Amino acid sequence: MPDTPRKDIIDVATGRRSADLVLKNARIVNVVSHEILEGDVAIFGDRIAGIGRYEADQTIDIKGRFLCPGLIDAHVHIESSMLCVPEFARVVVGCGTTAVIADPHEFANVMGTAGISYVLRTAKHGPIDVYVMLSSCVPASPLETAGAELTAEDLDPFLANPWVLGLAEMMNYPGVIAAAPDVLSKIDIAANRVVDGHAPGLVGRDLAAYAAAGIMSDHECTTAEEAAEKLRCGLFIMIREGSQTRNLEALVPLIRPETADRFMFCTDDKDVRDLMDEGHIDFAIRKAIRLGLDPILAVRLGSLNTARYFGLRGTGAILPGYQADIAVMEDLKDCRVTQVFRRGRLVAEDGHCTDPPISKEGVSSLRSSINVHNLDLLDYAIPAPDGTSADNPPRVHVIEALDNRIDTQRSIEPALVKNGQLIADPARDLAKMFVVERHRASGEIGRAFVRGFNLQAGAIAGSVAHDAHNLVAVGTNDADIHVAIQHVIYTHGGQVVVRDGRILADLPLPIAGLVTDQPAGLAAQKLRDLSEAARAIGCRFDQPFMALAFMSLSVIGQLKLTNQGLIDVDKFQPIPLVAGT
Amino acid sequence: MPDTPRKDIIDVATGRRSADLVLKNARIVNVVSHEILEGDVAIFGDRIAGIGRYEADQTIDIKGRFLCPGLIDAHVHIESSMLCVPEFARVVVGCGTTAVIADPHEFANVMGTAGISYVLRTAKHGPIDVYVMLSSCVPASPLETAGAELTAEDLDPFLANPWVLGLAEMMNYPGVIAAAPDVLSKIDIAANRVVDGHAPGLVGRDLAAYAAAGIMSDHECTTAEEAAEKLRCGLFIMIREGSQTRNLEALVPLIRPETADRFMFCTDDKDVRDLMDEGHIDFAIRKAIRLGLDPILAVRLGSLNTARYFGLRGTGAILPGYQADIAVMEDLKDCRVTQVFRRGRLVAEDGHCTDPPISKEGVSSLRSSINVHNLDLLDYAIPAPDGTSADNPPRVHVIEALDNRIDTQRSIEPALVKNGQLIADPARDLAKMFVVERHRASGEIGRAFVRGFNLQAGAIAGSVAHDAHNLVAVGTNDADIHVAIQHVIYTHGGQVVVRDGRILADLPLPIAGLVTDQPAGLAAQKLRDLSEAARAIGCRFDQPFMALAFMSLSVIGQLKLTNQGLIDVDKFQPIPLVAGT
Repeated sequence: MPDTPRKDIIDVATGRRSADLVLKNARIVNVVSHEILEGDVAIFGDRIAGIGRYEADQTIDIKGRFLCPGLIDAHVHIESSMLCVPEFARVVVGCGTTAVIADPHEFANVMGTAGISYVLRTAKHGPIDVYVMLSSCVPASPLETAGAELTAEDLDPFLANPWVLGLAEMMNYPGVIAAAPDVLSKIDIAANRVVDGHAPGLVGRDLAAYAAAGIMSDHECTTAEEAAEKLRCGLFIMIREGSQTRNLEALVPLIRPETADRFMFCTDDKDVRDLMDEGHIDFAIRKAIRLGLDPILAVRLGSLNTARYFGLRGTGAILPGYQADIAVMEDLKDCRVTQVFRRGRLVAEDGHCTDPPISKEGVSSLRSSINVHNLDLLDYAIPAPDGTSADNPPRVHVIEALDNRIDTQRSIEPALVKNGQLIADPARDLAKMFVVERHRASGEIGRAFVRGFNLQAGAIAGSVAHDAHNLVAVGTNDADIHVAIQHVIYTHGGQVVVRDGRILADLPLPIAGLVTDQPAGLAAQKLRDLSEAARAIGCRFDQPFMALAFMSLSVIGQLKLTNQGLIDVDKFQPIPLVAGT
Repeated sequence: MPDTPRKDIIDVATGRRSADLVLKNARIVNVVSHEILEGDVAIFGDRIAGIGRYEADQTIDIKGRFLCPGLIDAHVHIESSMLCVPEFARVVVGCGTTAVIADPHEFANVMGTAGISYVLRTAKHGPIDVYVMLSSCVPASPLETAGAELTAEDLDPFLANPWVLGLAEMMNYPGVIAAAPDVLSKIDIAANRVVDGHAPGLVGRDLAAYAAAGIMSDHECTTAEEAAEKLRCGLFIMIREGSQTRNLEALVPLIRPETADRFMFCTDDKDVRDLMDEGHIDFAIRKAIRLGLDPILAVRLGSLNTARYFGLRGTGAILPGYQADIAVMEDLKDCRVTQVFRRGRLVAEDGHCTDPPISKEGVSSLRSSINVHNLDLLDYAIPAPDGTSADNPPRVHVIEALDNRIDTQRSIEPALVKNGQLIADPARDLAKMFVVERHRASGEIGRAFVRGFNLQAGAIAGSVAHDAHNLVAVGTNDADIHVAIQHVIYTHGGQVVVRDGRILADLPLPIAGLVTDQPAGLAAQKLRDLSEAARAIGCRFDQPFMALAFMSLSVIGQLKLTNQGLIDVDKFQPIPLVAGT
């Protein structure tokens, strides 16, 4: 049901009643008829009433620019922007986005159902429609301790909320293929709604089983071949173009007019800097057009296709009776968004949200998420095993971190021993790494060595650490590691760079330890400062804190560290720090 | 939710459990990926589990033929087949149809909600899925007396039935455009479901208003221009290819790969002879391919597109987890359907349903629909007005019936007067026509003269008379008209040809006076006999009873006759028989 009474829309459409607003001299991208039409768009209340020739007290001259449907992100973790929900909305609405389908996977891993409720609640303070898919895999792995565990029974009540559309990416594809009862019961509760998938590299009978189970889409395709096979199995393909993972160039060649209705755009994870620098779904459209995709199809992948897939009736197109969500573009080449209307109201101009800054209650009403057992310097000591010494050092498993990758490799190295302790060895790029359980004050700490960060002094620490989001630190000495972890605790979560006991840069993330309560511009600046500070202590990674955030994700890579210790990911079990023990 | 447990389907898909049935050596028409793939299809329970290489105890060698999704009719009045619901299903399943979206408009006009329930109930005895859209315009016009009046309150409870998908063709487009409250309340109850349209020739702002009101489709387009404008307004286009109205040739050129997802096939009205002679949706596919439409798109218009439009999850394609509804075609040119599987079970071979004939309870459990005030010969007398005579005859309005048209023209003629009565004049092709109210025994009879049938003797009568379905007769003399009407009453509805007091041919239609309880072959033969008998008494019309059935539809044509008398359709009001009075 439209918010604006049906009768009023009809009266305006017929001309019996004048519109609230008419957009004049527009070129309208009709993603249904696959045409660009010239005309006026009459808006009444939150709806488009008619397209043709209309009059109203208020008119806006579009000057021949292109009216596109408001853009829709088919799958996004808002947490990855590091912004609170309404602030994220303010940023993306400037890019022409009027709706997103959010999976509050990180909030849910930290806060459980309270995290999902938080997104639903605070979304109402932003200038876009935020629909929610229920996080299907909390926790992501039994080998790390998250803040919550969500069963089908926990998720089910949310399906009564009209803003909740179904079950988010079912990452536990082994569980689906094994027909694990707890996994199938989650699919069951959402069986008449949308069930999103996540199955990197899945092929053959396993893929058939995954599709047959009721999974409807996938956003993990990295090659056209992979996407073609998933398409054949009936999965809708969400083409992901985020901060780290960018699949658009690989997948665009697969799109044919006959199959275009099965594709959508999503970002999955995109941080505030990239959103501000590049854009959002408009960026995917722009890039797809440059790669040769028909511009109207490109717009459709970012609007109507997503709306239809999610059953969002009356959105995703500029049509009579549809929600008046419109992104005005300068052209269909650079796709610069000049104005954005959401539910009939102008909400952004020249890339910036024109609504007043978000109010206090829009930002936060979530309890602190940090619950850590008292720590002292000795917690970061790693004693040398009996019988080892500086001259006879133990051989330890080392995590080999990689630049711009979320997986890892592994090696075995002799540790550096001093005064009965295993310590960092900057000369060999061996840093100490810790994962401190932060949800239940269990006192659990994982300890290991990592190579790749190239720290020559100090330490970095953060509370963003997929998917359990425990506290993670990498450093050259225990004192700086301790200061870094304590600072993150003090700010109720955040990211920090420390050298010689001093904070070089920080970004407090008081909301679930995941996102800031500050405006986007400030957050972006602080992120840049963090990167620079990390470089100042030697880090060579392009995105040091992105690398840090994936060091404890125990489902991808060869070797990871969680609060339960080192994890051999292939064997999916813990292994001791010292090799061969 | 599939009927077959999700776990079992997954187990079969992975190969852990063997399938019930494997279709071997098939060419599979994948309407999602727009490809034809070679492989096996594994079926378990009512579902397709996987596509690839599979084994089972039971295998069927498809011998390289084409597996198409089971076909779906997007909009059909089953009553127009003149068959009861399960018998209709038996006929169309032989054509590859495994589901239809039925609008029980005629049953509803005669029997009200009992007519809708009758379709839902008896559908379970046939071999296809019959989904129901709720008849939106009962009665169709205030100028004829139907058997029921259905308000939003009457229709609303049906929406709880999972086989009910929404609101059927909203023919009262003037009511929509005028924002009439009773019309909008019907749209309101179905606002989150499907709302079908019916708006012949509607353009411009009125069309925008119709779309803005929430109408989602149209099946009345007769030209590509009309369909293009409706597409632009966001309406889905159902391409109709029925017995009388055939729009496929005009509309196929409009279909482009980019817009193909907005088109579907429907028959609307197709009688048993045409279904048996030509086919059903397979006929539309065959014809569309001959007209140049891509064969895979043609199949998709008859399957997946309709399933998606109506939200029929897991149907309309041959994909893992989908309902195992499959039409095997010899090729994608003549599209001869050799086998049909519905929910995993073989239900038709070589054009014929292989299920046992329908049982008694499948046919009928509806009370008699004929409720007529006692009639005698004098009821058919039309006295000459005072002051008129054979030499000074009154001038009367005459309905000019047209061959293969449902509209009419009008003229004014001097009546033939004999013994103070206005009588038929076969020499001038002026027959007497009567419409007898048959629902409420009101005794109302409409009387008029009609030209076009060219009856030289006898009379024809029937109880199928859109949309109110009163009794209608055309004849050359009162005695034969009386016998014809009495015979229709005696058979609880039907169609009959009478000459010299003798029944030349008849087809009893005891179910609501609309459809037969007999098998399709017998019904088709009786229809042919009726046509022949009508020709024997002089009728030159291609389809005499089709012409008869539209003589009292008071919303189309220039002049019609209802139980309330002659209706000037343009002025939408009754006019007297004698001109100028």
